[in-house]
Amino acid sequence: MNDALRIFACNSNRALAAEICDTLGLALSPLEISRFSNDNLHVQIRDNVRERDVFVVQSFTEPVSDHIMELMITLDALRSASARRVTAVIPYYSYARSDKKDAPRISITGRLIADMLQTAGANRVLTMDLHADQVHGFFSVPVDHLTAIPTIAEHFRRHHDLAHMVAVATDAGGAKRVGRFSERLGIPMAIIDKRRVSDTNVTHGEVVGNVKGHDVVIFEDEISTGGTLLSTIGTLKAAGARSIHVGAVHAVLCGPAIDRLRDAPIESIVVTNTVHMPPGKRLDKITQLTVAPLFASAIERIHSGESVGALFE
Amino acid sequence: MNDALRIFACNSNRALAAEICDTLGLALSPLEISRFSNDNLHVQIRDNVRERDVFVVQSFTEPVSDHIMELMITLDALRSASARRVTAVIPYYSYARSDKKDAPRISITGRLIADMLQTAGANRVLTMDLHADQVHGFFSVPVDHLTAIPTIAEHFRRHHDLAHMVAVATDAGGAKRVGRFSERLGIPMAIIDKRRVSDTNVTHGEVVGNVKGHDVVIFEDEISTGGTLLSTIGTLKAAGARSIHVGAVHAVLCGPAIDRLRDAPIESIVVTNTVHMPPGKRLDKITQLTVAPLFASAIERIHSGESVGALFE
Amino acid sequence: MNDALRIFACNSNRALAAEICDTLGLALSPLEISRFSNDNLHVQIRDNVRERDVFVVQSFTEPVSDHIMELMITLDALRSASARRVTAVIPYYSYARSDKKDAPRISITGRLIADMLQTAGANRVLTMDLHADQVHGFFSVPVDHLTAIPTIAEHFRRHHDLAHMVAVATDAGGAKRVGRFSERLGIPMAIIDKRRVSDTNVTHGEVVGNVKGHDVVIFEDEISTGGTLLSTIGTLKAAGARSIHVGAVHAVLCGPAIDRLRDAPIESIVVTNTVHMPPGKRLDKITQLTVAPLFASAIERIHSGESVGALFE
Amino acid sequence: MNDALRIFACNSNRALAAEICDTLGLALSPLEISRFSNDNLHVQIRDNVRERDVFVVQSFTEPVSDHIMELMITLDALRSASARRVTAVIPYYSYARSDKKDAPRISITGRLIADMLQTAGANRVLTMDLHADQVHGFFSVPVDHLTAIPTIAEHFRRHHDLAHMVAVATDAGGAKRVGRFSERLGIPMAIIDKRRVSDTNVTHGEVVGNVKGHDVVIFEDEISTGGTLLSTIGTLKAAGARSIHVGAVHAVLCGPAIDRLRDAPIESIVVTNTVHMPPGKRLDKITQLTVAPLFASAIERIHSGESVGALFE
Amino acid sequence: MNDALRIFACNSNRALAAEICDTLGLALSPLEISRFSNDNLHVQIRDNVRERDVFVVQSFTEPVSDHIMELMITLDALRSASARRVTAVIPYYSYARSDKKDAPRISITGRLIADMLQTAGANRVLTMDLHADQVHGFFSVPVDHLTAIPTIAEHFRRHHDLAHMVAVATDAGGAKRVGRFSERLGIPMAIIDKRRVSDTNVTHGEVVGNVKGHDVVIFEDEISTGGTLLSTIGTLKAAGARSIHVGAVHAVLCGPAIDRLRDAPIESIVVTNTVHMPPGKRLDKITQLTVAPLFASAIERIHSGESVGALFE
Amino acid sequence: MNDALRIFACNSNRALAAEICDTLGLALSPLEISRFSNDNLHVQIRDNVRERDVFVVQSFTEPVSDHIMELMITLDALRSASARRVTAVIPYYSYARSDKKDAPRISITGRLIADMLQTAGANRVLTMDLHADQVHGFFSVPVDHLTAIPTIAEHFRRHHDLAHMVAVATDAGGAKRVGRFSERLGIPMAIIDKRRVSDTNVTHGEVVGNVKGHDVVIFEDEISTGGTLLSTIGTLKAAGARSIHVGAVHAVLCGPAIDRLRDAPIESIVVTNTVHMPPGKRLDKITQLTVAPLFASAIERIHSGESVGALFE
Repeated sequence: MNDALRIFACNSNRALAAEICDTLGLALSPLEISRFSNDNLHVQIRDNVRERDVFVVQSFTEPVSDHIMELMITLDALRSASARRVTAVIPYYSYARSDKKDAPRISITGRLIADMLQTAGANRVLTMDLHADQVHGFFSVPVDHLTAIPTIAEHFRRHHDLAHMVAVATDAGGAKRVGRFSERLGIPMAIIDKRRVSDTNVTHGEVVGNVKGHDVVIFEDEISTGGTLLSTIGTLKAAGARSIHVGAVHAVLCGPAIDRLRDAPIESIVVTNTVHMPPGKRLDKITQLTVAPLFASAIERIHSGESVGALFE
Repeated sequence: MNDALRIFACNSNRALAAEICDTLGLALSPLEISRFSNDNLHVQIRDNVRERDVFVVQSFTEPVSDHIMELMITLDALRSASARRVTAVIPYYSYARSDKKDAPRISITGRLIADMLQTAGANRVLTMDLHADQVHGFFSVPVDHLTAIPTIAEHFRRHHDLAHMVAVATDAGGAKRVGRFSERLGIPMAIIDKRRVSDTNVTHGEVVGNVKGHDVVIFEDEISTGGTLLSTIGTLKAAGARSIHVGAVHAVLCGPAIDRLRDAPIESIVVTNTVHMPPGKRLDKITQLTVAPLFASAIERIHSGESVGALFE
Repeated sequence: MNDALRIFACNSNRALAAEICDTLGLALSPLEISRFSNDNLHVQIRDNVRERDVFVVQSFTEPVSDHIMELMITLDALRSASARRVTAVIPYYSYARSDKKDAPRISITGRLIADMLQTAGANRVLTMDLHADQVHGFFSVPVDHLTAIPTIAEHFRRHHDLAHMVAVATDAGGAKRVGRFSERLGIPMAIIDKRRVSDTNVTHGEVVGNVKGHDVVIFEDEISTGGTLLSTIGTLKAAGARSIHVGAVHAVLCGPAIDRLRDAPIESIVVTNTVHMPPGKRLDKITQLTVAPLFASAIERIHSGESVGALFE
Repeated sequence: MNDALRIFACNSNRALAAEICDTLGLALSPLEISRFSNDNLHVQIRDNVRERDVFVVQSFTEPVSDHIMELMITLDALRSASARRVTAVIPYYSYARSDKKDAPRISITGRLIADMLQTAGANRVLTMDLHADQVHGFFSVPVDHLTAIPTIAEHFRRHHDLAHMVAVATDAGGAKRVGRFSERLGIPMAIIDKRRVSDTNVTHGEVVGNVKGHDVVIFEDEISTGGTLLSTIGTLKAAGARSIHVGAVHAVLCGPAIDRLRDAPIESIVVTNTVHMPPGKRLDKITQLTVAPLFASAIERIHSGESVGALFE
Repeated sequence: MNDALRIFACNSNRALAAEICDTLGLALSPLEISRFSNDNLHVQIRDNVRERDVFVVQSFTEPVSDHIMELMITLDALRSASARRVTAVIPYYSYARSDKKDAPRISITGRLIADMLQTAGANRVLTMDLHADQVHGFFSVPVDHLTAIPTIAEHFRRHHDLAHMVAVATDAGGAKRVGRFSERLGIPMAIIDKRRVSDTNVTHGEVVGNVKGHDVVIFEDEISTGGTLLSTIGTLKAAGARSIHVGAVHAVLCGPAIDRLRDAPIESIVVTNTVHMPPGKRLDKITQLTVAPLFASAIERIHSGESVGALFE
Repeated sequence: MNDALRIFACNSNRALAAEICDTLGLALSPLEISRFSNDNLHVQIRDNVRERDVFVVQSFTEPVSDHIMELMITLDALRSASARRVTAVIPYYSYARSDKKDAPRISITGRLIADMLQTAGANRVLTMDLHADQVHGFFSVPVDHLTAIPTIAEHFRRHHDLAHMVAVATDAGGAKRVGRFSERLGIPMAIIDKRRVSDTNVTHGEVVGNVKGHDVVIFEDEISTGGTLLSTIGTLKAAGARSIHVGAVHAVLCGPAIDRLRDAPIESIVVTNTVHMPPGKRLDKITQLTVAPLFASAIERIHSGESVGALFE
């Protein structure tokens, strides 16, 4: 059987998909997404995919519901077009943040979307830096879970003096991620311990650990409005931090984010391109590292049956 | 076990849900839908639903993807909150129009959404006038499929002289629906036979049947942009139709629809409230019939185990 | 792995299966169907099928239940004999007519059989001219849905003067199919609008469209007893039709069909061989076109991963 | 919710269903089974079953495929008509004999039908004397497995002198069943050890155990053509058996069975009514015991949540 | 239908089950677990459970595999004995610790066991303090996830001077849990930042936060061998901690744990009885709080359809 | 794709796995099974298995629960490590003995484990001499069911004078297996008819058939404690048997088995190595035949798509 590799992209991050294809020396396969007058989405695969090994690239960025539905419909179209295997490549899986029941009668939507991907026809998933490692276990299909932490850490190693640097997590839930990042750089870590103030919705943060006189790198999985960053920076400055840097994988950067980042006392920000960053969202102090080579290698290895884990050894 | 009835509404048509609740003498149960800064939706059920018999009302209107995701997440939250039974009440199921493969490598999305509803936790579905009767068979869970055709026909019987009236389908696919409508009124029918003109994308319509000197009622399942109506009216006028009326179940009315309907030589339009019609979309010549009593009766019968079919006998 | 193509046939239409094999230059693979004394069916695959790409040909013709059970048991035997992929080739899928709930508390059996085929082990389905296009959406496994409409239309183009020909649907439900057939021939269409007469079970038909002085070709998906044809011909003759021809895909021809067709004022009948036609059912005025080349091409393309849709471009 | 009990019967054994209903003081609920001209079956439930606890009685007797399909379609209609729970009552489950792979590339059809029953909507199964106890494990839904062995044994105890009686199994596979029967009566057992004679298909039987001068009761789960019985009787007579009696649960009695039983040197035959016995199949020496009370008790206990096992304590 | 509540216990923690039953004023229902000579487990439910609402209590303690298999077989027996609903009550779900892929080619066994519980027939799960909140999302069935954190925190509030107390997490992964515990007590927190020392397997811990001169309470979800505690205590003492207390939910206490805890400079240890603590494992400095009232309330609320979340408001 | 064959072994019978690998000229692939301090099992596949055709060898021997869990976790790890196909090779499937409901409210655990294997990720099963042939039907995935009966029979043919030999089943349930064994050797058979003595739990056995003065070979699927053998030997000796031999496939040999076999008047015992026999369990009179060549051939044929059934023709 014909087992060629085909890569498609839905609308959320075609630039990354194109870069992945370039790396692999492949052309992006054609796919047409349109919208009927009643707002129904319509997807047509414009290439024969019978018995092909197909990958579809789609990040869950704004508008998230449309981007999820685009992917679901594309997966269904590929399955019924007899693709041999379909891998959903989701560089940014936004609903990984809905990973637990921290309030009564809510949905663990990260699991729901995982189940829906399988319903729609995904045979595998390839993703990056899920909000919590445990989200991997929400999927019934095999998942390859990449990480950009080494890439970002390497950037800091090359461009900064690590002697007085300390990595900071914006809350206790991020301690593990920051621990991994700081261990790689051989620098200490600290966390912000956030607490609700009495009966109001206001939270107050205390630094646990020592940041006084240090260069701080706040490390996060994603930056959305930048609100958490701002309050963290305030807490760090009050605790005597000398300078502030930021590292994050997913640059969601929505709403007032760009204005806030521009104006905040942040010296440098390092993110990746799992989320497409249009020209209007670029700032001089933001460095966007590409994860296309990582995704390209993973796709090649999945396709040919080589170890993906070996990429990180 | 406590087996009380609970009705919730997502955001697409809370007015209809409220009217259904009024008819049943119930209060709408509280549900909170919000949006995180990364555009993820968040749903919280604000009432205990353990062992309750729960109905959630949501039409698939613009923005369709958000409204579908709202429903999916709500279903998941209800299931995991231990509702005894969850019925998705979908007055307008937009993707029923994606019901066949009329082009290569597309998705029959009407089936995909049916499967996803089951994945998300729907135990039953209650809907109205699906684009094709066969779409009923896309669902794995029991479906009650209501129709507003008798309601609309009854309106025409009361307000019009049927003596010279003929019902018209805008294409061959709608012949069956119009046949059912016209038989109920005891009036003849005609159809527009649409064909692609040679190699262009333009289609040309011919009236099959006799409309000359007749009062015509174009009957459709849904009106979206009104484009099909306009071209149909042109064809009918050219064929000698005396006056034009329109009947339709789902008043999607998007884009230029309202302007077109206002300006077109249509004497009256009868629709229902399966789709919420904001004040700005109302015209004097549009009569909106309510389907709330039908839905209320169906919900009551489903809850108490009486026949729903008997509603239409 | 050994990935050779194997074609088996159950009992309903071995002639078509043999013709498909001839076209492909393959021998039909051996299969033994017997019946125990308690009327249980017994199937034994008489060839190794491990890792083979297997196709089983079976039409759902009389006795339908036996033919369905033969296929189910054969699929199960193939799966447990470790076939790599099993495609159910069902040239005539009789239960496609049970495609909606037009009466209370009935089964949409077209969907039920689709689910049972999957339970029994079908990985794919290959079929032809389902009663409604939507039935495609009843299947969970990928379906290739062939059509004989171009083949039959081509026959009419070659053998008839189309100048005064009009295609007629026997009811509103068939309008779409006839629209497709007539558009291909560039001839007009008409439909029979059937209505129940007051409180009796008798239906009365009116021609919608113009057939006066025309050569009429009644186009149907299947002919079973011929009863619908007879009443349609009466209506058409009363409306001034000059001559009557018939085109249909599935020549079920049961009960009094042959006698009726012989005696009716039909000049010619064109059908295909999706249903096996024993010598006793043949009439001079019936032309049976073979669909074996279409099925053979589709099987070859499915096996080798080429586009099946391209067959109809 | 309304939780009334409803009992329906398909066509194979309406007499037994009626007798079960009589015992329970219920009327058989109405169900209409018809056949379309293309041989498709059509089932309509003629009573509201929403939230009811429904039982459908159907034995898998000749024509087996039709009777299975009738049951499947009825189950599907009941599920989609919103029955609360549907129990398939299958007094004779013919395919229990297809319970193993004793030849290469065959289907274990007893398992396949069990899976198909679940696909069609059966929530439970109630059956009697499956060919092997292990077939119980083929079902995914809960099964209540009744036995008529005590009923038949009791008949022998009352009407026969057990002093010189020995129970005989017609082959090694039946040894366990006969062991259970003979233990209940406190009589010895013997088995026929059947072997294939060299390279032919002929089998030769030897009595293992002592039957000389004894009154023999051959005990079987089912009698179909009576062929096995005839050869067993020959073997037993040759081994000196004094008289021959027969006990069996399922009186399939097909083909030459009645003639054979009439003419064979059998003194008495005791069977049950799991299989409907039309007047033409009755012989003076056949006593048909009714299992209706057993099924009625089981249905009542399933409905009301009492132990079914207690019926046999 | 009979809908009475029944509580069963497998072998791992019958004392807790008995205490739950006492609280509810119920007798523990009888269940027999034995072992065949080939080491197969055998479970027999010794009470009618048809249509009952059944709960089975089993913690995954040593021998874990046997205790898991006991539960699986019990669930299967209950399902096939027609219980209306079966809730697996798993106070200590040991495999919650296998919740991520922190090494290549391992199993996320917490998810696997969740799937197996569903396969075996669990309709719901009731559990306590899963290793990570996200493990909740591994289950497909509804889960009620209780927590003993408020119970343990309350104990500390009552018996200790909180003025100089600080809560400590033994690693970054536990920061969130300790944050929740310390916020409830209004005390600060610290974490141990553990790192692998160059190329060896030895890890070295640093205190992040301030413990000097403080009374420290190390808070954990479970204590198994006590090894982590010992090294943490060393680190804390070196950092100047004044006194050491320990709080933990699951007192696994295996291997050298008791000896280590006895000899370690720990002033007090507070645990719960999710894991059965035999007399030999008791120490004066260990206080075991009972979670039976919490489980009893949750079971009662699940049974009667009241909110379980309300228990923690 | 890379489709190489990989064979792994869990802990129960690594010797057999190694012998199978030797036969195939392959190295056993590395797998690491460890145990956390809380008694959780941990499995790590130590070789890339992407797209490989993987077989895992594990017998369900004591400790059965641990060995089952080891296999389940290994299957899950292999699936999520993207093996192309995973076959569970289970030479001894202990729970095949839990194959029916011979007491109320028990589990048919043979079916449960079959379902759990599928949940855990087994795509196929390869096993040997299941307790009953019907257990094959418990599996949803394809099963290759090997038998060592010809191997053991061949041993008896070579080493014994068959002239006065008779094969004996220890109870009626084993009659079929012994029939097959004795037919192969051309010797007669007998069975022990076991009955419960009045109201006690004691059973009494009678020989059905003739053993007087014969050399008896008791044939069983498995020997566990040897208790059944001892009582059978007593019965046979009392009935005049001249000498006793034993043949069995699975040498479970637990508890007092070895002592009993050593001391019992058994002349020779022939078993296979489906169960690992440590040196301490070996006796001079026990001959252990290897089934490694059979398993090796089956694995090779499954891998390459050749008929496995042909191994037994």
